[in-house]
Amino acid sequence: MVGNVRNLWTPQYAGPRDSISIESYISGYFDGEGCFSVAIGPRPGIRVGWEVRPCVSVSQNADRSQVLELVSGFFGCGALRPDPSDQTIKWETRSLGDIVDRVLPHFLKYPLISEKHDDVDLLAMICQMMLNKQHLGSQGLLQIAELAAQMNPSGSRRYSAEQIKASAR
Amino acid sequence: MVGNVRNLWTPQYAGPRDSISIESYISGYFDGEGCFSVAIGPRPGIRVGWEVRPCVSVSQNADRSQVLELVSGFFGCGALRPDPSDQTIKWETRSLGDIVDRVLPHFLKYPLISEKHDDVDLLAMICQMMLNKQHLGSQGLLQIAELAAQMNPSGSRRYSAEQIKASAR
Repeated sequence: MVGNVRNLWTPQYAGPRDSISIESYISGYFDGEGCFSVAIGPRPGIRVGWEVRPCVSVSQNADRSQVLELVSGFFGCGALRPDPSDQTIKWETRSLGDIVDRVLPHFLKYPLISEKHDDVDLLAMICQMMLNKQHLGSQGLLQIAELAAQMNPSGSRRYSAEQIKASAR
Repeated sequence: MVGNVRNLWTPQYAGPRDSISIESYISGYFDGEGCFSVAIGPRPGIRVGWEVRPCVSVSQNADRSQVLELVSGFFGCGALRPDPSDQTIKWETRSLGDIVDRVLPHFLKYPLISEKHDDVDLLAMICQMMLNKQHLGSQGLLQIAELAAQMNPSGSRRYSAEQIKASAR
């Protein structure tokens, strides 16, 4: 129990405010709310028949979007948009260039503490394969589908690696 | 678009890992997933008829509870327990002494960036009133009920300030 009655409003209580490390704050925030994913969907116009779309996003209740604005400014990319399915706002980038140039270096420099960091590593592997154009051939596509299947184990997936394998051209 | 093909696995890509500020990381994590709340429930054994229970908690999917273990060790209080309603694990402390001595000083020193910081301030106000024993009298209880009603605007509340006012002894 609490011994003496204290005054929480005296400067001595918590000590002086320390300066926040924005880099660490953003990594901590993404460890909770962030999502690193790769969607693979049918796309007839592409030779192999499937399109690979890497994505980094984070959602927040609409009534406190300040952190999303911080994230948007910090990475200097992506866009904020309301999610019509619920009362949230989402910051999201689907640009391979922005993910490789702006987002991934941060999470390799200030890595997530939870196993969500595995998603960052898998995303980096897939982005590297995309930079090498491997997603445009069926062999690379299937490797990417297998890597993507290991991401976000608690999330849902529209197409399995087996479905993609069965129809990749 | 991405100009040159780069190798994301070279040390030059992201530069050397920087040291994470655990304090900032935890504040960022709580800005997303943390919950600062005060429950007020009927308790016949207490003279005023209602009990005030401050609470700080954070939840995480059970498959990556590392950050919760970090949180538990960092604050040196609270307990981890599985939430039977879903696949999450929750770290939670309901001890006024631990909240005042161990948790609140951190969030006053490394404040949340979003408006969730208002919940921290309201929790600190209510804890201060509890240290002053004001929750044991009807006037203080009603003031606490009105402050608590301003917290977690997107959350649910079992008893309204009006209900508590109508039956406080």
